[in-house]
Amino acid sequence: MRFNEELAHIATYQAGKPIEEVVRTFGLDEKEVIKLASNENPYGTSPSVVECIKANAHKAALYPDDSMCALISRLQRHYGIGYGQCIIGAGSDQIIELCLHAKATKSSKILMAGITFAMYEIYAKHIGAQVIKTPSKEHNLTEFYELFRQHKPDIVFLCVPNNPLGECVGAKEVYELLAHIEQESCGETLVVIDGAYQEFASYKDSSKHIDPRDLIQHFANVIYLGTFSKVYGLGGMRVGYGIAREEIVQALFKLRAPFNITTLSLAAACVALEDIEFMQHTLKENFAQMRRYEEFAESKGIEYIPSYTNFITFVLENPYNSSVICDTLLRQGIIVRNLASYGINAIRITIGTQEQNSRVLLALQELV
Amino acid sequence: MRFNEELAHIATYQAGKPIEEVVRTFGLDEKEVIKLASNENPYGTSPSVVECIKANAHKAALYPDDSMCALISRLQRHYGIGYGQCIIGAGSDQIIELCLHAKATKSSKILMAGITFAMYEIYAKHIGAQVIKTPSKEHNLTEFYELFRQHKPDIVFLCVPNNPLGECVGAKEVYELLAHIEQESCGETLVVIDGAYQEFASYKDSSKHIDPRDLIQHFANVIYLGTFSKVYGLGGMRVGYGIAREEIVQALFKLRAPFNITTLSLAAACVALEDIEFMQHTLKENFAQMRRYEEFAESKGIEYIPSYTNFITFVLENPYNSSVICDTLLRQGIIVRNLASYGINAIRITIGTQEQNSRVLLALQELV
Repeated sequence: MRFNEELAHIATYQAGKPIEEVVRTFGLDEKEVIKLASNENPYGTSPSVVECIKANAHKAALYPDDSMCALISRLQRHYGIGYGQCIIGAGSDQIIELCLHAKATKSSKILMAGITFAMYEIYAKHIGAQVIKTPSKEHNLTEFYELFRQHKPDIVFLCVPNNPLGECVGAKEVYELLAHIEQESCGETLVVIDGAYQEFASYKDSSKHIDPRDLIQHFANVIYLGTFSKVYGLGGMRVGYGIAREEIVQALFKLRAPFNITTLSLAAACVALEDIEFMQHTLKENFAQMRRYEEFAESKGIEYIPSYTNFITFVLENPYNSSVICDTLLRQGIIVRNLASYGINAIRITIGTQEQNSRVLLALQELV
Repeated sequence: MRFNEELAHIATYQAGKPIEEVVRTFGLDEKEVIKLASNENPYGTSPSVVECIKANAHKAALYPDDSMCALISRLQRHYGIGYGQCIIGAGSDQIIELCLHAKATKSSKILMAGITFAMYEIYAKHIGAQVIKTPSKEHNLTEFYELFRQHKPDIVFLCVPNNPLGECVGAKEVYELLAHIEQESCGETLVVIDGAYQEFASYKDSSKHIDPRDLIQHFANVIYLGTFSKVYGLGGMRVGYGIAREEIVQALFKLRAPFNITTLSLAAACVALEDIEFMQHTLKENFAQMRRYEEFAESKGIEYIPSYTNFITFVLENPYNSSVICDTLLRQGIIVRNLASYGINAIRITIGTQEQNSRVLLALQELV
């Protein structure tokens, strides 16, 4: 059977290895496997959310309230935005996908950093759009502006802070670029500000903080993405959101599948958003534990990218090889992310709990 | 901002009213509201599934095993199919969406029954494809064949049994049509057999039963869709699946978003599939209770469509008006589906529990 021509250029996505697969492949005990490959919250899900899920388990047969007003109204209060300025997705991934389907065609160009979140390119390829990447791996906004002027892309993705590298451009720089893009595209280029790790960046350095309300007050052509998968500890529940002016939100709503998150995800996200204590604990511990990885790298002379997220990226040099190191760790039940598929000799490690990090650092001590 | 031209032709989907909204609008007590509008399982979720969700609630932070091998291997055994012949979706809706994105373009034609599941047309409009409907509202396979020959559609949707009408074409007829379509399209027309309610149809009348394994052994251009939302009682968990030969499944996998169902949905579906007792209880009670609606309609001289599903459709005549009846019921806290938006004066009622049905029939007694 013939399928649409775009499919010929798409490789099936390979997610980070789940614990279940490592247990199967290497015959390990599930309890001994540490997964620090997908930037999940190592402190799990907050106790109040776990209670909420248990209390609502009997509602699994019922479709969610498709207006999702319980969650949207909480996000509205949280960010001080209007009701029609928010859309919920099955992870912020789904909002990325909706942006591409709403705005891009196979004749579109999509601009992004040299190394950034893989789904931007994957969803662009679904459409058959052309992907333009900056020569720099990390976000270089001068290069972004030059390529914007040269190519007039339909969509620009800024990952602030950036996954999988961890660096973060400042809010002021972002606003300057946005002002140029809005003016020079006459508001026609959609800019996606992916704030999946913004809570971490804002905690570490307030100059990196992007306020969605202020952002969309200034710019009509911008959408901010947030997620419950990281600091809120709901990776497995698949809830994210987009914040933009009504015109953009309404366009995305047209393409949204009904009931796009589960009944329990909706209930869980409402509780998670209000559990400030759990979030603050996560943020504080994250950066305290990250310091251990930085000190390790410094002691070994390994280059690392200062991180504004819940992971750290070690950039390796000969004779160290990221594939060899990841594979060796894997056999010991430690799953980290090999960035070889991004074209760099580097590994990305999610900052785990104190105990997890001790095991990782002990294992790394033997390898580098 | 300009968006893709297809969006101009898309109206935002309105799902059936959730209990929460009726409670808000009419100031009713949540416990008094009966929702028989979305064909959820009135017996809820099986106790074994509720236990599974509670036991796994603490895993909400972790992304699901994206290979979904736990569920796929169970479906493989359940249906006797090969491992590469199954793909999991966030509801079978998502598989419908993937089929359209993989096979259709804006120059495609998509063939379906006069009145059938709304998402076929909605997802076709997302692509900008042309929708062809049979003149008959119910499935008339002679008309399907004539329109197939005339239009050479890229995709044909058969809803077996059909939602929202409830009728069901026989398996033998379906196979005859499929043989013609495969031969005359040289295997290029994708036929989607939507079996969302197949368990109900098979239980009532074995001549309606479509066996996915046999189906895909016979036909290379067919995909069978199943769901956990109906008889398995997991509507709120968003899990469905597609079964087809490897070539089709691989194409859909290329467009599937990673982690497209939640960690708890994956665990819940595995348990639900094996709880035969709960399913059997649901099926038995469904048709016993349906008989009450049939008897009521017969006693009142109301036309109904003999149903092979978990709902029944009453076709009304003047002076009865579906919108008036639905609205009156709604004010009493009874939510049923008004089919006026499908262009017919009819209401669709999900078969509820004995107690729920007694309340609905008592209320209807006053109205017709």
